[in-house]
Amino acid sequence: MNSIFAQFQQQLLPFLERPICIAYSGGIDSQVLLHLFSRLKKATPAVSIFACHVNHGLSEHAGKWQNFAAKQCALYGITFNTETVHLVKQPRQSLEAIAREARYHVFDHITPSNAVIVTGHHVNDQMESFILALKRGSGVQGLAAIQPISQFRSTSKTLLRPLLAISRQEIEHYAQEHQLPWVEDESNSDQVFDRNFIRHQVAPILENRWPSIAQSIARTVSHCQETQRLIDEIAKQDLATCCADNAKILCIEALLNLSTIRRKHVIRFFLASHKITMPSEQQLQQLFAGLSIESESKRQIKVGNGWLRQYQGKLYLTQAFTELQQWKHVIDVQKIIDSPIDISLPDNLGTLKLSYCESDCSTAQVFSIDKATDQLIVSFAQPHEKVLPDYRQYRREMKKLWQELNVAPWQRKRTPMIYVDEQLIAVTKYFVCQPYVKDKHQLNIKVVWLEETESG
Amino acid sequence: MNSIFAQFQQQLLPFLERPICIAYSGGIDSQVLLHLFSRLKKATPAVSIFACHVNHGLSEHAGKWQNFAAKQCALYGITFNTETVHLVKQPRQSLEAIAREARYHVFDHITPSNAVIVTGHHVNDQMESFILALKRGSGVQGLAAIQPISQFRSTSKTLLRPLLAISRQEIEHYAQEHQLPWVEDESNSDQVFDRNFIRHQVAPILENRWPSIAQSIARTVSHCQETQRLIDEIAKQDLATCCADNAKILCIEALLNLSTIRRKHVIRFFLASHKITMPSEQQLQQLFAGLSIESESKRQIKVGNGWLRQYQGKLYLTQAFTELQQWKHVIDVQKIIDSPIDISLPDNLGTLKLSYCESDCSTAQVFSIDKATDQLIVSFAQPHEKVLPDYRQYRREMKKLWQELNVAPWQRKRTPMIYVDEQLIAVTKYFVCQPYVKDKHQLNIKVVWLEETESG
Repeated sequence: MNSIFAQFQQQLLPFLERPICIAYSGGIDSQVLLHLFSRLKKATPAVSIFACHVNHGLSEHAGKWQNFAAKQCALYGITFNTETVHLVKQPRQSLEAIAREARYHVFDHITPSNAVIVTGHHVNDQMESFILALKRGSGVQGLAAIQPISQFRSTSKTLLRPLLAISRQEIEHYAQEHQLPWVEDESNSDQVFDRNFIRHQVAPILENRWPSIAQSIARTVSHCQETQRLIDEIAKQDLATCCADNAKILCIEALLNLSTIRRKHVIRFFLASHKITMPSEQQLQQLFAGLSIESESKRQIKVGNGWLRQYQGKLYLTQAFTELQQWKHVIDVQKIIDSPIDISLPDNLGTLKLSYCESDCSTAQVFSIDKATDQLIVSFAQPHEKVLPDYRQYRREMKKLWQELNVAPWQRKRTPMIYVDEQLIAVTKYFVCQPYVKDKHQLNIKVVWLEETESG
Repeated sequence: MNSIFAQFQQQLLPFLERPICIAYSGGIDSQVLLHLFSRLKKATPAVSIFACHVNHGLSEHAGKWQNFAAKQCALYGITFNTETVHLVKQPRQSLEAIAREARYHVFDHITPSNAVIVTGHHVNDQMESFILALKRGSGVQGLAAIQPISQFRSTSKTLLRPLLAISRQEIEHYAQEHQLPWVEDESNSDQVFDRNFIRHQVAPILENRWPSIAQSIARTVSHCQETQRLIDEIAKQDLATCCADNAKILCIEALLNLSTIRRKHVIRFFLASHKITMPSEQQLQQLFAGLSIESESKRQIKVGNGWLRQYQGKLYLTQAFTELQQWKHVIDVQKIIDSPIDISLPDNLGTLKLSYCESDCSTAQVFSIDKATDQLIVSFAQPHEKVLPDYRQYRREMKKLWQELNVAPWQRKRTPMIYVDEQLIAVTKYFVCQPYVKDKHQLNIKVVWLEETESG
């Protein structure tokens, strides 16, 4: 039994009950993969295998490669799928990254939810990725590079790389031994790409001196992966002790109970889990310097593409906010009487639902207006006059009311308010002003604010 | 103000009150370091600086270099020290490692306990060390490579590398600008040494493509250092929850309460802190597979150069033991009467003290023998007959006695026993046999066993 096949079979063993998708370009690595799968299929006929070839349309030969791939699959009796993608180069993204993204999108698209997607990455790819991570000055997570088994994107699918311990040389030897044909992507020798520079300029020098350097680096990578799992586990636990009411609010006291280094780590983990770009060391230090459980302590600090806002002993992660002072929405009261109205609020604030309410609306916020009222206005502007909420005896300044309602400063400018002309009727979620309290002799209108979960 | 000097001065700021030892070879890096210190001395005359040149005697030019170094120090008015070392190549150790070890030994030897030892390592050295760690397949700790500030060995001294953020090119430029002379160690171009191979073959290719690769790798190293600090902190805390009575005993229940990955990490940290060579992944898995809080569960597993022995819900770290069945020591009773006797026990078991005891020896173990007894024998052989300890009514087998005394199996063969002829008199630390219990009409002898702290 061929040793590569034995290793391959061993690795596939836990996945034979699931649909398997081979990422198949027709290049030597995936050609060897296809051949290994054809042998696996003979040994285990019940296994469900299909190949997926993505035509990137980058090379003039792309069509030829696709035909080759189709024929090879037919030869081995493996179902062949293909899709053509159109790549659009984004600024600051490498063509390699965009092509991979497009490819993975196709794999996701064409596979069922329990699929295993298998790629032909080998130990030399691992070394190349590692050196690319070094070039970026990555930390342990970046060095952890390519994993043999991982979750496919954020799905229930699995990404498997059964050749990751095998060298390019062994793959070449296998292809020769089995007289396999394959296509040669001419872009693999284009040293404009850093990966090809490493492959053709750096790796040969290292391997000539230290023949097992790729395996050594793979060992380093596997240590880094284990360390990363360890620190992720710690961060998850620490985060659980720091997360207050919801996943976007941190309790400052709990944060301060952690050592500096663990605090930094848990904040990084927290931000990463909300897809916030990593803040600089300086931003983090600025953040930590002012952490305080004093309820008076208020701050708003930009971290990456998000904001951390400190209020009453908690840190709130939010997006960057747009100024809403100018935003205004006018509604004909008659329309509300005709049928419920949805108002799309700006800046990810969700939807405001207004509906005419005859009876049984006791649980929601309701205000009453004169039947002759033509129009309502929704805006975020704050009234300058003193206000008399339903729950108070005397008028008070809006600022004082916000304080007694414990509303964070940034939320005050982001809470929809309802007016008739210049007169404040209701502050959504918080109160109705006294002259407009529910009164069955007038026109009753129900207000529901469906807040979106803010995206970072 | 020169930017290198400014950076240098900044880094030295916290250390100006302490004696500073410059590790000075006379090569370009340490020559620049010496020059920077001569400027620092002008700016801060009170600072106490001296240079230490180690003559490795490896090159025919070693004497010439030493003279050069002495003259340069005289020129700058910096006290000059030199020592010659004789290197003995050990198997499996690189000459570079041995030379460094010898050099650091000298630095330790000639500096006071609060000294700061300063070396001229720069960012390209960092890159070289990092690539050497990759060649060994190191984990995060190995990748953490060279630290800017660290503890010097296990002393209270500090090892400082103020040029660690500066490139070789900048150092060369500084030397040129200040017209500094230096010696060129011809071994630096000998590519038998992996470091020189990296310097001359690998680094130029990388730097030509990515001019700031050394800085990127330094960033990676600094991330790794931070991650290492984080996981060390976690391991220390976890170890504190697992360490039973003493630093060499782990509580299995506490270990099992940790996740697999944290358990592995804390065991590694525990072994490293006792200077046990790291066990293989396989040894660790074998260890974990049998961890059990069942008090019946007994095992002894070799880990690196030590042993972990499981007994009654605890793991004991010990050295590898020697068979002691044959060991025997005969003492003339008259000698004990003349003056107390110390017996050196084998295999790091410490010292057994026997002394004649007239009165007031109530707190120690004491046995009584007939005044006519000539000789006592100390050995580790176990008696086959049943034994009658002072605390029992009937004789019992020694094996049962060990069990009721909760003595770990491996300790049973390592507890010194005292005999007259074939007759067991006392089991040190545990009991005296009944016919020999203290009796003021006979000859009373006091036994004290000073156990050494076992070294791993």
